[in-house]
Amino acid sequence: MNIQEIKQGIIEGDRRAIAKAITMIEEGNKEIYDLIKDFKDYAGKAIVVGITGPPGVGKSSLISKLLKEAIERNMKVGVLLVDPSSPISGGALLGNRVRLMENITHENVYVRSLATRGWKGGLSKAVDDSILILEASGKNIIFIETVGAGQIETDIAKKADVVVVVLMPYSGDEIQALKAGLMEIGDIFVINKEDLDKVRTTELTLRMILEKEKGSKILYTSAVYNKGIKELFDAILNTWNELNGKGEIVRRRMERIKSKLINYLSDRIDGLLQNFLNEEDINIENIVKQIYNKSLDEVEASNYLFKKLNEKILKELKD
Amino acid sequence: MNIQEIKQGIIEGDRRAIAKAITMIEEGNKEIYDLIKDFKDYAGKAIVVGITGPPGVGKSSLISKLLKEAIERNMKVGVLLVDPSSPISGGALLGNRVRLMENITHENVYVRSLATRGWKGGLSKAVDDSILILEASGKNIIFIETVGAGQIETDIAKKADVVVVVLMPYSGDEIQALKAGLMEIGDIFVINKEDLDKVRTTELTLRMILEKEKGSKILYTSAVYNKGIKELFDAILNTWNELNGKGEIVRRRMERIKSKLINYLSDRIDGLLQNFLNEEDINIENIVKQIYNKSLDEVEASNYLFKKLNEKILKELKD
Repeated sequence: MNIQEIKQGIIEGDRRAIAKAITMIEEGNKEIYDLIKDFKDYAGKAIVVGITGPPGVGKSSLISKLLKEAIERNMKVGVLLVDPSSPISGGALLGNRVRLMENITHENVYVRSLATRGWKGGLSKAVDDSILILEASGKNIIFIETVGAGQIETDIAKKADVVVVVLMPYSGDEIQALKAGLMEIGDIFVINKEDLDKVRTTELTLRMILEKEKGSKILYTSAVYNKGIKELFDAILNTWNELNGKGEIVRRRMERIKSKLINYLSDRIDGLLQNFLNEEDINIENIVKQIYNKSLDEVEASNYLFKKLNEKILKELKD
Repeated sequence: MNIQEIKQGIIEGDRRAIAKAITMIEEGNKEIYDLIKDFKDYAGKAIVVGITGPPGVGKSSLISKLLKEAIERNMKVGVLLVDPSSPISGGALLGNRVRLMENITHENVYVRSLATRGWKGGLSKAVDDSILILEASGKNIIFIETVGAGQIETDIAKKADVVVVVLMPYSGDEIQALKAGLMEIGDIFVINKEDLDKVRTTELTLRMILEKEKGSKILYTSAVYNKGIKELFDAILNTWNELNGKGEIVRRRMERIKSKLINYLSDRIDGLLQNFLNEEDINIENIVKQIYNKSLDEVEASNYLFKKLNEKILKELKD
């Protein structure tokens, strides 16, 4: 498939074309810029829903059930499973998560795991670009699943129009979520697996934490027993409408564009730094050795390196 | 206390002086550089042990017991509880963790939580500098506790001479740890809370994952029942000696110095970028609005901004 065929395929909703484009995004293939430029008018066509929460709360099975609900409502739905995993393990485990989901072969559904190696800004950018590909392929709603465990995950969840935080009624989950910054970004809070005990305690802690955030909704689901799914789907759509009425969706989407620009710039100047560190005349290993042997002061060495970096940038920009 | 009194206090092992210095580090107070320069000769005096693992496995209670063991062995011990928390919650929760620990008022023990707001590189640097302060105060062994949940945490765990990964025999913990990249950095694996079921399964999965890593040790502890603590403490000291014999401790310490230098440079050039984004003549909000309205192309906008950034850096470096 050449880039024109991929483009045409995406617009027709062809799975192979979508898959190929997202793989190109993962690999950092520059040709993807052609697609992104041409797809500009599709930006913002879909409702983007972030599904986040601590590991093991059942996010993937909840999304499985939401897919079924979307199909029944005759909506076209895309799912991105995002995971800033360790390089050696990432791919395989994400693949497993995809295989464990139901309804993924339905013609209205496209599910895809997303991983990039190393580079953090890359994952963030890959999510943005993949959202656009799914929008161009005619999806009405896009779910982005991230493990809510750190800064990168929180940043990715913030790309969504509506953020659903999933918690399990198991002692301490709500505290972990609070620590991970999830409470600040959630529009809807779902307590999943209500077949377990301690639902009440979780709700009480949640209500305490969320006290001042009047808008937040708390729902119960059980992906296993297929309970509360319709209600959750409705809550997502209603929340989107409410936020949109307040101009909040526009604000969030502009915020997403802004982060993307900043990440781009940040990556480019990081690139300058990486090139600098690889230069032979810098000999960073030797500087490290001298600091370790205490023949060189680390504060002085830092200043020296920054001066050298400046000279380098200056030279590079002039050329 | 002035900086000279703080310096003298640290060398005498005075708690207030240590606390003051670490607070200065957290706040990014530049005066701390004086201490760091003067304390250069203390670098590397302590055995640095990283204790990491998923949330809720009982890392803090395990450290509590290790403190008791250190006291019995007449060692001076420092603990840093590190948590890249959300800005609104961080401090309070870390404070709770400190209060929940035992033996923290013993004269040979200094326990401290460490949080910096926002900025990721800052936390990493704060850990490095705090280790040096604790070394200068005469500590023989320093435990660094991090939640093993993401890239930042893994980076911090790598600062240690010896890394202990704590897991709970609860279905899936070892998979989460694998995904978080913990398997690659662990020297010792501890299955804590052996009063729970599924210990065997956890061990089997672990052995499968670690198959090719001949050196890794698997131990059992129960912080609650005070079991396996002496054995763990011995394993830490023995592992340190083995690694040191192979030149691995030197290699890891040099790696720590290198990351610190790179983080420093990265922060400085990030500073250039932040200044640039705040400049009025850039008007990034307007660019964002134009991209949102589809009157401007994001690829073109990115290139334009990078060009402007270059001009800015060029001008700044010339001045």
